[in-house]
Amino acid sequence: MATETAPPETDDEPSSGEQSSVEDSYVEPNIDVEALKGLLDGPYAGMRDLVRGNLARHSSILEEAETMTRDAFRERVKDLTLELAATGQTGMGFPESYGGGGDIGASIAAFETLAFGDLSVLVKVGVQFGLFGGAILQLGTKAHHDAYIAKVVTGELLGCFAMTETGHGSNVQALGTVATYDAAAQEFVITTTREDAWKDYIGNAAAHAELAVVFAQLVVGEDDHGVHAFVVPIRQGGRACAGVSIEDDGPKMGLNGVDNGRLHFEAVRVPRTSLLNRFADVAEDGTYSSDIDNANKRFFTMLGTLVQGRVCVGGAGINAAKVAQTIAIRYGNVRRQFEATSDTEEELLLDYGQHQRRLLPLLAHTYALHFAQEIVAGQCHDVFSGVESDELVRRQLESRAAGTKALATWHATRTIQECREACGGAGYLSVNRFAALKADTDVFTTFEGDNTVLLQLVAKGLLTDYSSDFADLDQLGMVRFVAGLAVETVLEKTNAHKLFERVRDLLPGGDQWDQEAGLLDSNYQLAMLRFREEHMLGGVARRLKRGIDNGMNPGAVFSEVQDHVIASARAHVERLVLEAFVDKVAELPDGDNKVVLSLLCDLHALSTIEADRAWFMEHGRLTTARSKSISREINSLCRKVRPLARDYVDAFGIPEEMLRAPELIGPAS
Amino acid sequence: MATETAPPETDDEPSSGEQSSVEDSYVEPNIDVEALKGLLDGPYAGMRDLVRGNLARHSSILEEAETMTRDAFRERVKDLTLELAATGQTGMGFPESYGGGGDIGASIAAFETLAFGDLSVLVKVGVQFGLFGGAILQLGTKAHHDAYIAKVVTGELLGCFAMTETGHGSNVQALGTVATYDAAAQEFVITTTREDAWKDYIGNAAAHAELAVVFAQLVVGEDDHGVHAFVVPIRQGGRACAGVSIEDDGPKMGLNGVDNGRLHFEAVRVPRTSLLNRFADVAEDGTYSSDIDNANKRFFTMLGTLVQGRVCVGGAGINAAKVAQTIAIRYGNVRRQFEATSDTEEELLLDYGQHQRRLLPLLAHTYALHFAQEIVAGQCHDVFSGVESDELVRRQLESRAAGTKALATWHATRTIQECREACGGAGYLSVNRFAALKADTDVFTTFEGDNTVLLQLVAKGLLTDYSSDFADLDQLGMVRFVAGLAVETVLEKTNAHKLFERVRDLLPGGDQWDQEAGLLDSNYQLAMLRFREEHMLGGVARRLKRGIDNGMNPGAVFSEVQDHVIASARAHVERLVLEAFVDKVAELPDGDNKVVLSLLCDLHALSTIEADRAWFMEHGRLTTARSKSISREINSLCRKVRPLARDYVDAFGIPEEMLRAPELIGPAS
Repeated sequence: MATETAPPETDDEPSSGEQSSVEDSYVEPNIDVEALKGLLDGPYAGMRDLVRGNLARHSSILEEAETMTRDAFRERVKDLTLELAATGQTGMGFPESYGGGGDIGASIAAFETLAFGDLSVLVKVGVQFGLFGGAILQLGTKAHHDAYIAKVVTGELLGCFAMTETGHGSNVQALGTVATYDAAAQEFVITTTREDAWKDYIGNAAAHAELAVVFAQLVVGEDDHGVHAFVVPIRQGGRACAGVSIEDDGPKMGLNGVDNGRLHFEAVRVPRTSLLNRFADVAEDGTYSSDIDNANKRFFTMLGTLVQGRVCVGGAGINAAKVAQTIAIRYGNVRRQFEATSDTEEELLLDYGQHQRRLLPLLAHTYALHFAQEIVAGQCHDVFSGVESDELVRRQLESRAAGTKALATWHATRTIQECREACGGAGYLSVNRFAALKADTDVFTTFEGDNTVLLQLVAKGLLTDYSSDFADLDQLGMVRFVAGLAVETVLEKTNAHKLFERVRDLLPGGDQWDQEAGLLDSNYQLAMLRFREEHMLGGVARRLKRGIDNGMNPGAVFSEVQDHVIASARAHVERLVLEAFVDKVAELPDGDNKVVLSLLCDLHALSTIEADRAWFMEHGRLTTARSKSISREINSLCRKVRPLARDYVDAFGIPEEMLRAPELIGPAS
Repeated sequence: MATETAPPETDDEPSSGEQSSVEDSYVEPNIDVEALKGLLDGPYAGMRDLVRGNLARHSSILEEAETMTRDAFRERVKDLTLELAATGQTGMGFPESYGGGGDIGASIAAFETLAFGDLSVLVKVGVQFGLFGGAILQLGTKAHHDAYIAKVVTGELLGCFAMTETGHGSNVQALGTVATYDAAAQEFVITTTREDAWKDYIGNAAAHAELAVVFAQLVVGEDDHGVHAFVVPIRQGGRACAGVSIEDDGPKMGLNGVDNGRLHFEAVRVPRTSLLNRFADVAEDGTYSSDIDNANKRFFTMLGTLVQGRVCVGGAGINAAKVAQTIAIRYGNVRRQFEATSDTEEELLLDYGQHQRRLLPLLAHTYALHFAQEIVAGQCHDVFSGVESDELVRRQLESRAAGTKALATWHATRTIQECREACGGAGYLSVNRFAALKADTDVFTTFEGDNTVLLQLVAKGLLTDYSSDFADLDQLGMVRFVAGLAVETVLEKTNAHKLFERVRDLLPGGDQWDQEAGLLDSNYQLAMLRFREEHMLGGVARRLKRGIDNGMNPGAVFSEVQDHVIASARAHVERLVLEAFVDKVAELPDGDNKVVLSLLCDLHALSTIEADRAWFMEHGRLTTARSKSISREINSLCRKVRPLARDYVDAFGIPEEMLRAPELIGPAS
């Protein structure tokens, strides 16, 4: 090799045969699996166990998803949804006065746990009780509640949530369905005005829903008041109501137990009281009234009440990833291939460094996301139970739910794919679960908000400090607003800088904190992610400002800065996720379980930094030598996590029946 | 922002409003789509068009894959396979004397093009004509050819390739099926010796194959001669032959038109002449003979003749990715969402910077892989047509085919996923193709060799210089061999260093070549990838040596160094891919099509470097400022490629019928 290109040997220290002093003193901890499961289950352990029991009892659904025709399976999923409703697990989010459980947190926990099983059932439950029932609960008033909620909770009344149209999924303010008020008849006339304004991809619409919550532009006389929600009967006795056309969306990649369909309205008349009127109303004479003057803000307030759906999908993605990881790690723990350390026995897959590298950091991310999700679910409970009524907190919840959903569902897609590949050809057989996991979760990155659009929402919140004055800004309004501020002003409003300063002061080295702190010091890890977030946000603000100052069209500026916008939102959410994990570890009493969680937390933190190490080097916060040290430390952590891997996944508490994969996973613990 | 953490403004130059001098002089070229299609189609344009026509004629298969029962669809796929055989497209790889086309290159081109359509058909064709027919052709001798090939070519005789077992997919030398020679009867007795030695995942086995090429340990008397292939009847008149048990593998994630199954043999007797005896034979008296003394080497020589399968799967992955990209780019070119640069019209998705970033570098990679694949296919043609008989070339082909297959199929998985997400909820509907593309291609990363194992094979070839003396080394033998050499000796044997030196001398700046050369200078781009390959290989050699010198178990050394081994193999293949693209551009006559290909080549090269920019920084070959420049240049290239995007995908020449996706793709050109 040419000497001029060879780095100093010490700069390229190989890992083989190397033992750090930390490793020398390391004693392998024992995991108390039950205690760890309890920690993961959190305050709703009982509810989660109820759902686990229900899943195991109805585990035949996993096979039925493969063997039944699409029509028969849809009926089966509907029937099972009703059976689950009878156990109480699906109605936890509704008031007790209507037969619900009156506990939002329990409702989210139940939904998340359902993701261990067939995901058509999960989504059917989500559509009926979350989207449809939730919209009536959140957007309607007492008359609507009295009329519908009790029957929604039992499943006697099935409904759908008709927001998305063929032409508009992300930009729902531009919907083409119109509800025109006819004061003479005291009715709204619902009309699909364009070919691309069919309600589309609507779950429960193709076969089962009798009622739809329809989002439409409310027009009274000359005035368009923007998008509002209406209760519209669409099907009676199995047939479409007059003026309503229903089409089936046809076969989908997955979730074929859910009857997604299209709806078209031709002058469908509904009573004036069909308007879900919590945030706005139309009087008999057509007078429009709302406590929220700004139409944009009113719309986003309405949408904000539906945040539970995003919280639930994020949690479901994390739990679906757990199923994949449990199978892949148990397989890697029993499957042997090629002789390596022994001449007489082939090596266990999980003893290969590469296999550890592909599976174990993802396991650590799942734990991290689990604890981050726990916080989001807790905040969601507080906000929707009235424990917390501050508007700022509500907007922060919306942002956090959006960001966590995005990262959690991308994590699910990536993890399930990696786990399938790690199980080789066996992973391709449907009996081994990955087929359904992949196909069913695929759309999680899209529904309840496209992940890219959600991250833009997160960035907007950060850049405008969640201020209610700017809640009504669209993307371009945000560009103009941020461009009008000094960069320092933008950053002062975010708390990334304050948090960074706080933790940096705890580290040795002063301005050299990034070189002198220990890699396994969680304050160092936090400082890195906080620094990155602050720096990226500043970069976005500076770029927006410069683009506008240079006279560019705000849309063009946004397009060019969009990758930075999204990167900064991701950096923000990754910081929140790490904080959640670090805090969880910190609050544990000393003992082996604290040690084992701490290992995973370090693995999560360092592999998050490693994944973006180029950025840290580019921005002067990571020397090349230290970057390499991080990679070596990750390998070392993988070797420590490896013997504990089975316990880590056992703590997820996935019922054995839900794993199927009889040939892959070895015996139950 | 705290001043001590803010980088200098010039170090963080934003892209908005910035115009490089190159951009000022840039004139948008016009793509001659037909000429570009001709360039992509290469020497087998006629064959590709024949297949395109066949695909379009039978395009109903795409819908039948969704609507038929599994059993009915299997029959449909078999029937279509026979219809295709009648057109000559599937038999191109067989000698004309048996009714084939006698043109390996045409055979590969035909197979690749078939990947525009239903992939069960593709795999059924691959199993029958590639794996089964290919094994008889390559491992058998004239008697076998006379007995079978003509009937294989027409499809009158259907067969399967029974190598993989439940317990062994990657380490096929450890198969548990045994063929014991009974000299008295002059028969081999085929037996499944263990529960995990069922032949498994065998395409064509569950329903259609009459004959199997069975790989089994050949035992004569006391001697085990290792794995050999035998022709074994498994089914007659639709029923399993005596002693043969057949099970169905059941539903799979995709490819459900292919009847994968398991085979078990209980003392199944076949004549002595059933041994496919090109490389070894057993005489009547049981005397074993082979021109290749070493059992390992003999086995790898046999396997090597089957390399066409890997070449074909790599090409199929690339073409499946083209289908996804054509749909996603045409959708991005007509779909609008959110107002951005205009107040009256929503923005086209493909005009968003983020959307360009997610789709266009992948498009560039597809072009690059296409040209790299063209080289592999050409070498395959030469080697198997006798144009090239050098053993070293043959081994290099095996390595290159393995590496290209790995990168191409991972690229397909990633690209199809990204394209699905870029089409939102619509991408989830089966009619829009992604469902089948995702499900069917998923196993490409596993079959015909697990990608990770294949990259290890590539690394082994590099580290042992493809020397025939070491062709028989297993992984641990490789470790010991490399550890026994000086690092310099290892590197001298590879040609990465020579190639690096050659191109470096063309660059300005001497040792500072990496800082002074232009980013768009293809010699700079090549130098970067060649430097990385050489450096990584040196690192692997050094690590292996140190581990062994430190007295570690070779298997443990390998496990710890495995990620470096795989990274170096990937670096090698990425270098080959870039060379293929650069060479292709260089040989084009001046003109707009050269300009447009050059744009994509730069985008491919720079995004390949960007993806590993952390490594380049860690190894002193990329300053942080230059790293940021590369990211900006990629954004700039994306903006140039964007208006041409539709033409780039039109040049793939995918029949309109194969795209389906009626609501997504806009009008045909």
